[in-house]
This record gives sequence, C-alpha cells and structure tokens, in this order.
Amino acid sequence: MTQLNETHDPALRSWVESANRPDGDFPIQNLPFAAFRRAGTREAFRIGAAIGDQIVDIPAARVAGAFSGDAAHAAVACEQPTLNKLMSLGPDAWSHLRQALSRALGKGAGNAGRVRASLIPQANAEHVVAASIGDYTDFYTSIYHATAVGRLFRPDNPLLPNYKWVPIGYHGRASSIGVSGQSFHRPRAQVLPQGQSAPVVAASRRIDYELELGVFIGTGNAPGETIPIEEAERHVFGLVLLNDWSARDVQPWEYQPLGPFLAKNFATTISPWVVTLEALAPYRAPRVRPDTDPLPLPYLESAADRREGGFDIELDVLIETAQMREKGEAPFSLARSNYKYAYWTVAQLVAHHTVNGCNLAAGDLFGTGTLSGPEPEQAGSLLELSAGGKQPITLGNGERRTFLEDGDAIVFRGWCARDGAARIGFGEVKGSVLPAR
Amino acid sequence: MTQLNETHDPALRSWVESANRPDGDFPIQNLPFAAFRRAGTREAFRIGAAIGDQIVDIPAARVAGAFSGDAAHAAVACEQPTLNKLMSLGPDAWSHLRQALSRALGKGAGNAGRVRASLIPQANAEHVVAASIGDYTDFYTSIYHATAVGRLFRPDNPLLPNYKWVPIGYHGRASSIGVSGQSFHRPRAQVLPQGQSAPVVAASRRIDYELELGVFIGTGNAPGETIPIEEAERHVFGLVLLNDWSARDVQPWEYQPLGPFLAKNFATTISPWVVTLEALAPYRAPRVRPDTDPLPLPYLESAADRREGGFDIELDVLIETAQMREKGEAPFSLARSNYKYAYWTVAQLVAHHTVNGCNLAAGDLFGTGTLSGPEPEQAGSLLELSAGGKQPITLGNGERRTFLEDGDAIVFRGWCARDGAARIGFGEVKGSVLPAR
Repeated sequence: MTQLNETHDPALRSWVESANRPDGDFPIQNLPFAAFRRAGTREAFRIGAAIGDQIVDIPAARVAGAFSGDAAHAAVACEQPTLNKLMSLGPDAWSHLRQALSRALGKGAGNAGRVRASLIPQANAEHVVAASIGDYTDFYTSIYHATAVGRLFRPDNPLLPNYKWVPIGYHGRASSIGVSGQSFHRPRAQVLPQGQSAPVVAASRRIDYELELGVFIGTGNAPGETIPIEEAERHVFGLVLLNDWSARDVQPWEYQPLGPFLAKNFATTISPWVVTLEALAPYRAPRVRPDTDPLPLPYLESAADRREGGFDIELDVLIETAQMREKGEAPFSLARSNYKYAYWTVAQLVAHHTVNGCNLAAGDLFGTGTLSGPEPEQAGSLLELSAGGKQPITLGNGERRTFLEDGDAIVFRGWCARDGAARIGFGEVKGSVLPAR
Repeated sequence: MTQLNETHDPALRSWVESANRPDGDFPIQNLPFAAFRRAGTREAFRIGAAIGDQIVDIPAARVAGAFSGDAAHAAVACEQPTLNKLMSLGPDAWSHLRQALSRALGKGAGNAGRVRASLIPQANAEHVVAASIGDYTDFYTSIYHATAVGRLFRPDNPLLPNYKWVPIGYHGRASSIGVSGQSFHRPRAQVLPQGQSAPVVAASRRIDYELELGVFIGTGNAPGETIPIEEAERHVFGLVLLNDWSARDVQPWEYQPLGPFLAKNFATTISPWVVTLEALAPYRAPRVRPDTDPLPLPYLESAADRREGGFDIELDVLIETAQMREKGEAPFSLARSNYKYAYWTVAQLVAHHTVNGCNLAAGDLFGTGTLSGPEPEQAGSLLELSAGGKQPITLGNGERRTFLEDGDAIVFRGWCARDGAARIGFGEVKGSVLPAR
C-alpha cells in the first residue's frame, strides 16, 4: 500500500489560490493527471496535472526548467498524447513527478515563476481518454449490486456460488470508451418482446448507467508471469470515474452463454483526470468481507489488503434531463454510494487477472463493476433503483424515470473527504443519450 | 462479395518456381500478407507477401521501382511493423497492391528484375502478429459446436433459444494473442474439484484447443454508425487460422454470469499470413442455414450472403506430442473440418457487431468460434472429441489423450482446393503447451 509522504500534508497550500478552496477537487495534495489541449485548437494533446481550476502543462513547465533529475525524466514522458509512456516508467517515476509538482506549486516555491506561464485554465481545455487502452476488463466487485441484479433474474438464487471466491470479470470493448462529454445515439439491437419467441430489432427502451470506477494499469507483466497481491498496487497508476452504459433490454436476450456484448459495447465514459493511488493514500479503508464469509484463496489474500485494501471514495449520481436544462433546474441526485463497500479490492483484481499468466500492459483499464452500497438509495443503476423498471423514480422537478430518456445526461462525481486530510476529488464524468438514429 | 478478376486465373504461373507447385499454399493467385523480418536480426518488421516459399519484401520492391500509381501508394503503407496502415487505406488499395504483385510476379513480367532482389526465403523469416489488434471479439458461429458443447452442460436443452437469431459473440483478450510458434505455460487458476464446494488454485488439467479462423477488420466505422450487411465484406481485410486455447476446468467455475475469462485469456495463437477475401473469391460457398430455421432478421440478411456468404476452407488439426518429436513420428490428425459449415457468415458478424453503433477499427480481430462440422470426426476441440474428457482418443503411435499434455503442440492447417481453381493455402498455426510454472 502507498505510504504517506510530504505531499499528503493537509497544511500544504499552493500559490495557485483556487487550489486552496476547502471544497475544491484539486488541492495541492491531489495533482491528478490528464491528457489535454487548449479547446478549439489543433495543438497536440499532452499530459497535464490539475491544480485548483488550472492545469499545469507539464511539458511546458519542464521546458521552463521547473523539474530536475528523475522528475524531469518523467516530465519528458508527458510530451505524449496519452499517459502510456509515463505509466510505463513505473511507480517511482510517478511519485517523483508528483512530488516535484507539489514542491513547484507549493506556497513560497522558488521555481513558481517557471511554472506560472505553463498554467492553462481548466475551463479553456479539452480532453481525450487519458490512455491508449489496450484491453478493457470489467469486474463485478459490489456484492450488493450482484445480489440485487441476481434477484431480478433469479429470485431464489440471487448470488451465484462462485461470487465469494472469484472476482468475476469479463472483457469489454476498448474502442467505444470515451471521455467525459461523450454522447451516444440510443443503440438499436435485437430484443425479445415479452411473451414472444421471435426477436425484433428496436431502439433500446432500457438505457441505463452503471456507477463504476476505472482502474488504470500503469505497468504490466510478461505473458506467463503473475503479479502477486503484495505487488499489485505498484502496477496501478490511478483511478477515474467510469459509466458503463447498458441496454437492459438487449442483455437478457443475447448474454447466454458467453456474456454481455451489444448491451454494453456501444459506449463507456470515463472522467479525464486520473487520481493516483499515492494521492488516495490517506483514504485507504479496510476490506469489507464479513468474518462469516470464506477466507480468500491465498493468491487473493494479504494482511495489507485485509487492513486497507479498500478506498473511502464518496460517489454521487446526478441526472440532468432536457427539461432541467431548458428550465435551468438543478440536476437531481439519484443515488449516493461509496467505493469502500466493494467486496473485491483493486489489488485482488490485479492478482486475479494475472494468476493464469494473462499479461497486462500500461494503459489497460479495469472497471470495478457497479458500485452499489448496502442501502437501497445507494444503488448504482436505474435497474436497481426502479426494481427492474417496475417502480418509476420521481425526480425533484416531478419528472419520472424508470430508464433514461433521450436528452438525459448522467453525471457522476467522486471525492474523498475527512477531517484532518485534504479533500481529494475526481471531478466529474458526464455523458448523454441522443435519440436513436 | 468480391468479384473474380485476372489475379484469379488458374493458368497464371510465376517466375518464382516454388509458387507453381500444385500442392503449395502460396501460388500467385494467393499473395497473402504478413509482418516479417529476417530471423535473428534486429531489422524493423515490415509487410511482405508470400509467393511460393519466398516473401516479397514489399517496401524493398517499392524502392526498387516495382510498383506505380495506386499500388505504389499502398506499398508505402507496408513500411510499417503491422498491417494497420495498409488496412486503413481500404479495399481498393488492397486490391491494387495485390494486382500489382500478381503482375510483377507473373511469368514474363517486365519488372521481375526489380522484384527478384527483394525476395527473402520464408525459411529465413520470423513473424509477429500481423496487426496491432485494438479489440478482439470471439464468436460462436458453428451450430454443431454450440450444440455439442451445450449437450455436455445442458443435456436436455443443448442449443439456447437465441442461437438461431443472434450471432453470439463476446469480447476477448487482445494482449495475449501471439503468432504461430507461441508457447505458453499451463495456466493456474481457480477450479472447483468435483463434489467440493470450495475451489482450489491448480494448474489446469484440461487444456484444449479450439479450431477457429480469425477475421481481420480492414476499415472500421465511426461510433454510432452501422455497417450494413451489403457493405460488410468491404470492411474485412482477410482471414487467418486461429487457436483459441481454453482451460476447460477453469471455465465452468468462473463463467457465470458474465462469460469466460481466465479460461481463455492466457493465450490465443494466429497464423502469420493473412489471406485476403479477394484471394478467396473462387471459394465462396452458400450459407448453410436450413430452410426449416427462421429467416435471419433483415440486418443479417442479403441475397448475396445467402448465395455465397460462406467460404469453402478445409481445416486440419494435428497433434505433435513430445514423444512424436523425440522418435521422429509424424503428427497425428485429430480432426478435419471446413469453414463452410459455419451457421453465421463473416458479413453477418460485421453487421451484427455494428448494429448498435459499436465502432470497429483497422486491425480488430474476430474469432469465428470453434469450427466443428456436422460429423463427430469434424469436431474442433478435444472437449468434443473426448466427450467432455470421458473417452480418451488413441493417437497413431498408441498414445492417448483426453486433454493436452505438457509438450504437446497443436497445428492447424487450412486451404482451399477445387478443380479449375488454384489452391489457396493459409500455411499453418502452431502452438505448444509448456509445464505449469
């Protein structure tokens, strides 16, 4: 697990004043990375770090002489349109760069002048997906989600017997992963109308979101090698918010026997800022596995993972309908959850994925699976909130929803906050549903 | 469907004499593409075309002036370590290059001198996977395989109700796809011992192959756009042999509810030479769907697909055990099948994959799924040949197998042959099982 260091000091303040707001996502203790360029330009995308409402253009800061030694070397790897190069340098390089950024952005930093000219307002930037994603794997780490969904499909047997042993995962589609702001046309596909034996092709009527986090792999393993759980987190670069858009009426007809396909692969949206595990170190949480459950198999077990394999990350789901936009009404909070409820930890996912020698690479992305919590109002999808579409949800402005309508946008926000530690935020991921073509 | 042109003339002969052997895989009518370099060197990988027992080094031939016009432009795209650039130029470019190669390699070609110095013996070359594979999707197109496997898991209900409607597919792992010659350590993963309720981690005892073809996408589609079945084959670059290695004891425990994962993602092996759809044009075959089955939904139906959506490709599976290698015994043929038995066609797979707007890209790979034929001896896996491991197979030298042993190598060969047409071969894909680590 990542140890605390001087970058975590909650008393640190930045000369970038917007970073010192107590409710801000990007204080000097966070410093997440993203791929960006100034909006509306043809500039090359490159890597920046968030500070307050600004972005440090890391290549520009390097040229200005803001870094030296290992950090300067890592900064060279930021002259790339994605994080893959920086990722491949490994956790020591990530940490050196982050610590150098912390020093350069701290109040009274001697080299502040070298960095100031490389700041770009976040409001003036546009993003792409932060890494070139070789392979995307989606997991199923919330036992509350697995139980709730299982109950809809199999009322007598909601949780399958493998759940408490196997961190269930499956391969997803990398090509359709987009960055916050992504919109997609309501997909058309085969669905089986109720009571019929022949399917039809129709625009999905059950478009849903899934509240997830994404886990970016920083360094991989050679084919045939495993990543032991004790080393797993050194292979993880950081986390993003992830919306696993789902067509609930497509999935039941297509998913036997090989799993979800067209129900999931039309779009997945992630937030631009990758929050490093180092930044999240003050928010580690114990694993939630109850004592009455079987112990994990040895390759999924370590003392550190048991003690602090989890992360205390608050998650909020908001809906913004077309009417809300037109009338200037505030988005409505559909649910609030927390990553600490996940049954399987990040380290367990990495250890499981590689136990058979499957090779991971820099830029691979894991989805955690829908992060529903134990309470009904912590459900991470409309499928759960509406009891499979049977109980419409009334929004704050009186509109009702079972599944998403054309023009609906979904926003996830994520943050860590606790007395005695700086707030660490993820920003947001927003995506919206366009009418079927 | 691809039309016949002058490159298909069975009377064509090459000045490369090894191309004129009637039983050779690579006559002048074939001209498949691969990524290669001279073995044992640090040369950059580049694109070549097979002719007889030689490779035309396309960048070298271009520099020597062997091509002009559109073909020369396409040849520039071969100065790359993978086929992706050439793929992205589209089917007209592929055809121009292939026709120019045919002219340059034909007996009496005026520019033979410009090409001769760019020939490299295949025996002196090494390969990598021909394309950078963004996403890999594995399908399930043999109704005979689906029924046989279904019978092992669900004796009363072998074929699921969606099979004749949905070209079932799922996302696979791209990172562990290797080229012929790949070997892998017997994977370790969770298995549930018979009669037990708690799993153990063990080296798989049921390693199997799956006889498949791979379909390389040449040009993709934008997110949200579909590829209509009538245009589907123009997006397909060509076919390879594909071995979808499988751990049969891992799959049953892990695959519910989201599909196969560690049972499949440790290794997949493909042949180096990509045979273009244009080369396969003389071997088109009618679709096999019986009249008693439901008609495909309109997006999966076209007159051309019904008439000649299939391919008449003979497929042979051979095993070479450690004993065979030691004693100089010939590999043993385990099964012989043909791609023409597939229930779903290549064009149907492309149309289905994109009906919901999922975006494909140059270099994406589809696996057809195990290509078992209607007869028991045409089964494409040991799972089927051994009736789920219950009936050992006796090899020609007296050895017996239910599943693969350490040191076993599996070879697939594929070819098209018919009176009045030139033989079009795929070469082979070979892979082998190493002991567990």
